[in-house]
Amino acid sequence: MKEEVRNRLARLRLAMKKAGVDSVLIPTADYHASEYVAPCFKTREYFSGFTGSAGVLIVRQEEAALWADGRYFIQAEHEIEGTGIDLMRMGEPGVPTKEAYLLDHMSEGSVLGFDGRCITMAQGKELEALLSGKKITINPLFDPADSWENRPALPKHKVFLLDEKYAGESAEKKLLRLRDRMNKKGASCTVLSKLDEIMWLFNIRGGDVECNPVALSYAIVTKDAQTIYLQNEEVTDELREYAGKLHLTIRPYEAFFEDIDAFEIPGKILLDPDYTSFTLYRALIKRAGELSLQTKDLFVTGPGEIDYMKSIKNPVEISNFRDIYVEDSVMVTKFIYYMKHNIGKIPMTEGSAAQYLDHLRSTIRDYVELSFPTISAYGTNAAMMHYEPDPVTGGAVLSPEGMLLVDSGGSYLRGTTDVTRTIALGPVTDEMRKSYTLTAVSNMQMMDTIFLSGCCGMTLDIMAREPMWHEGMDYKCGTGHGVGYLLNVHEGPQTLRYRKRDAADDTPFVSGMVITDEPGVYKAGKYGIRIENVLLCIDKMETADGKFLGFEPLTFAPLDRSLLDPKYLTERTREVLNEYHRQVVEKISPYLDEDEKKWLAEECAEI
Amino acid sequence: MKEEVRNRLARLRLAMKKAGVDSVLIPTADYHASEYVAPCFKTREYFSGFTGSAGVLIVRQEEAALWADGRYFIQAEHEIEGTGIDLMRMGEPGVPTKEAYLLDHMSEGSVLGFDGRCITMAQGKELEALLSGKKITINPLFDPADSWENRPALPKHKVFLLDEKYAGESAEKKLLRLRDRMNKKGASCTVLSKLDEIMWLFNIRGGDVECNPVALSYAIVTKDAQTIYLQNEEVTDELREYAGKLHLTIRPYEAFFEDIDAFEIPGKILLDPDYTSFTLYRALIKRAGELSLQTKDLFVTGPGEIDYMKSIKNPVEISNFRDIYVEDSVMVTKFIYYMKHNIGKIPMTEGSAAQYLDHLRSTIRDYVELSFPTISAYGTNAAMMHYEPDPVTGGAVLSPEGMLLVDSGGSYLRGTTDVTRTIALGPVTDEMRKSYTLTAVSNMQMMDTIFLSGCCGMTLDIMAREPMWHEGMDYKCGTGHGVGYLLNVHEGPQTLRYRKRDAADDTPFVSGMVITDEPGVYKAGKYGIRIENVLLCIDKMETADGKFLGFEPLTFAPLDRSLLDPKYLTERTREVLNEYHRQVVEKISPYLDEDEKKWLAEECAEI
Repeated sequence: MKEEVRNRLARLRLAMKKAGVDSVLIPTADYHASEYVAPCFKTREYFSGFTGSAGVLIVRQEEAALWADGRYFIQAEHEIEGTGIDLMRMGEPGVPTKEAYLLDHMSEGSVLGFDGRCITMAQGKELEALLSGKKITINPLFDPADSWENRPALPKHKVFLLDEKYAGESAEKKLLRLRDRMNKKGASCTVLSKLDEIMWLFNIRGGDVECNPVALSYAIVTKDAQTIYLQNEEVTDELREYAGKLHLTIRPYEAFFEDIDAFEIPGKILLDPDYTSFTLYRALIKRAGELSLQTKDLFVTGPGEIDYMKSIKNPVEISNFRDIYVEDSVMVTKFIYYMKHNIGKIPMTEGSAAQYLDHLRSTIRDYVELSFPTISAYGTNAAMMHYEPDPVTGGAVLSPEGMLLVDSGGSYLRGTTDVTRTIALGPVTDEMRKSYTLTAVSNMQMMDTIFLSGCCGMTLDIMAREPMWHEGMDYKCGTGHGVGYLLNVHEGPQTLRYRKRDAADDTPFVSGMVITDEPGVYKAGKYGIRIENVLLCIDKMETADGKFLGFEPLTFAPLDRSLLDPKYLTERTREVLNEYHRQVVEKISPYLDEDEKKWLAEECAEI
Repeated sequence: MKEEVRNRLARLRLAMKKAGVDSVLIPTADYHASEYVAPCFKTREYFSGFTGSAGVLIVRQEEAALWADGRYFIQAEHEIEGTGIDLMRMGEPGVPTKEAYLLDHMSEGSVLGFDGRCITMAQGKELEALLSGKKITINPLFDPADSWENRPALPKHKVFLLDEKYAGESAEKKLLRLRDRMNKKGASCTVLSKLDEIMWLFNIRGGDVECNPVALSYAIVTKDAQTIYLQNEEVTDELREYAGKLHLTIRPYEAFFEDIDAFEIPGKILLDPDYTSFTLYRALIKRAGELSLQTKDLFVTGPGEIDYMKSIKNPVEISNFRDIYVEDSVMVTKFIYYMKHNIGKIPMTEGSAAQYLDHLRSTIRDYVELSFPTISAYGTNAAMMHYEPDPVTGGAVLSPEGMLLVDSGGSYLRGTTDVTRTIALGPVTDEMRKSYTLTAVSNMQMMDTIFLSGCCGMTLDIMAREPMWHEGMDYKCGTGHGVGYLLNVHEGPQTLRYRKRDAADDTPFVSGMVITDEPGVYKAGKYGIRIENVLLCIDKMETADGKFLGFEPLTFAPLDRSLLDPKYLTERTREVLNEYHRQVVEKISPYLDEDEKKWLAEECAEI
């Protein structure tokens, strides 16, 4: 594989030479800035060998470098070893940003190449401005994937409709609300590229990305019309009939850029510059020029309006979430019981454990698919935040000692789940128990936080993190993310992180948003711990001092009693944990057999 | 007074009519955007009767409105009653911003008047852009103070030099560091308007604003020259000699705008748009035009570079702070002892209590003046955050019951102090004890917070606030502010607040910064509680997960034992409080007499 990667890089470098491209930028992106991409868009993985879900590769004739975030430091180091690619540990002291690296390495007058469909408007404009100082030009038509031998084709899965008993609001009403928001922003139309926004708006779903029920698509909404762009192979008769009633025009996905070139731009265009491609941006500018429109004030930009709308779950979605999370938690609980009672008796690997859990989940009514590939990481493997067991070997063999971290979730018609439990398979060290208990304290403290209306994740994050910081420990990732409704398992705009990274990070929490609460401890070469619940933001109280919000857990699976060391629990988190465990017993027991019930009661007894 | 205010408004309205001004905007500001202003700049107070330290008045022919922040709701309501001015409670639901109010009330084509020297560049530009939509024009030469009868003259106090044994760094070195920062920002010069920045840079101090040892001044620093503008009456021979050695040109304060009109602008100008006046901004634009300079990229703007430099105290300043805070805390401790042992025996008012504390403080070596007028607020008065007893009557009479809140501080050659203690003068209610203990928990929890390098106040604030929020309570102000070194008692850029308000609110804490920690409970009509310590940010540890910072208290005065209800203390804050009280005894006892010592030991015994 290392040699194969070197050969691929050699081919790419040859193409770069021919095209007069000095450096090429290869993000992990499709044409829609999706977080997870279909196989045909895994260009970065193809040219680096790094299989993580995020990362950026820069290739030059004499060198290449891969930027990976904290979740992937250990995994990336391992996977790119021997390829000649340097690992850039993002956020660590002394590590240059991609931009600084390009400015430093590229000489005056040289050319940076990339596929402008895979770079966002925001990124492209920033790069252009930055590099212009050194007279470096951009070639957004240099597609590194042209050097990809046997590149897979675009996925083509049928689109399906999501009934209102699941979606909770008709597409007509959503369109009315969207137009109202467009209007308030002074825009006459919006061009949508973000796949989950398009799916949510029209109450449809697809299957073009594994675990993400979205269809490759674009959409244009003006004051009086709506058009969706889909591959012909994905359009069903049912969809055509539905579209007819909704006055939704269906056009071929391949025709999108041609249509943009002929678009009768009716006025200002609402765009999210983080999800609009640089190529689309340039096409709209060009078209506006042809129509003699002022390009200065052509765009009304900001974080996605639909992203915000869909982050606030409606009453039907909330009710479905509450139900499906209990059913999903039942399977997680059964899985923990199974592991604890069969380890050392039945041969098991990380992979077979994951398969067992995946199977349990697939028996739940309304199951569609996994919401992401199950992370089943044993011992030292769990220190890699997004480790997946090798599908061929099944990964590490499990034995009755140490800890197994399992992060998993399902996509159901009644919502998307995401849960992590770390399970002791046998004896553990005192240090592991301390780390697990601190993680539990962090998790419970966040769940118990009450906050004034107006607070965003940047304010709340420390409630989870400070118990760790107090011990000189930190997890190199956010504390939590939003979760879609039968959409992406990661969605915004709300986040839980202490430093601003994205434009929407200061979005205040409002009642109806959901967020994961997933602190952890990751000790390279030793072990990894994560405890993840999904929380629903709810109104808590209104007093003379204002309106206060808080969280209600949606996930109800037991924490591991043998990993809890009571001396590290605070008074408050002990109470919160006992109350949480009381609810776990109440909600989950009815679904268990007698042996499981007895065990769960013991696991959840007051501590 | 109410009638007098109405007469003043009548005169102003006549002047507005003559000048064709529809509405006039009167901020609380001098020409330097100072937080506290000399008497001659108290135009807003003159025309409204509201004596608070912050607030904005808008006057129109038929109506007038005053914007006040949460600290002042109760006081402002009281003071403007009967003047015909409406109170706008800033941040409360349904209350329009000043901008929204102007847009709503002013008709198309009308004129907004203000003194452009008292409005910042940022404010003026924003107003101009906002109002232009309604074709409303701005007259920045309409000075409402022209209708002020018997307006006081500009203050003229001699400037004095601050020895390096206090300042810790020579002006030469500070200038080198400033030029290095200018250079990195691509600026060729900077025009300084912020008084404490100018004082700090040149190691001088003045006395033009009560409690703020600053001199009215401007300064211009280019790559090879530095000029300060001061009133001739303020310049001493000592200063002239010092300036000669520093190659610092002294020019008359009155000549500043003439010099700007002839300024040979050497290139880009570094400016803080929140401290540069709109008039200065316009003058620089005009001058650049005369010199045929591009005005598009004329300014490099951002939060003050000197503000940031001076927020990180140097080792000499830190050492002086540590010493003077102990000496200052001794006087606060003696004061508490005195109050508790003499209440009900000696007749006392809020004012006489404040005078006693002010006297104690004045006996400290290196005392210069108070750092702000002492807040001594008894019973219901303490619900007004910035209440000051009436200087004539002495305010409320104190009796042996309820609580007295005293917020006070001194300016010394060895630094500026700021401390609040709330003292039980006799029996108190259970609710008061609960509120006091929650305040203590908030205060102690913030002091004990350990955080990763890179955190700003927006992240940390909730550590103080959440114990209150959990009970549905909130204090309507920030948790803390920076403190100057023999400069303003409020300084930035670091802050402790949970929502972003100023551009610099996301400035990360670094070792050497100081910050107040002052949560409180304010119950209108009932009582007010605040506990305020000043904290020094220090390096705590460096681990595999990063560099961690924390706080060291500088203030060492006992909390009130009779107000602490142990059932509301958490395990952790109980430990932190006991350790804090152990240090109070250790540091303060050596300065006390035997009776005081005995009492302090009892107050600080383990709880």
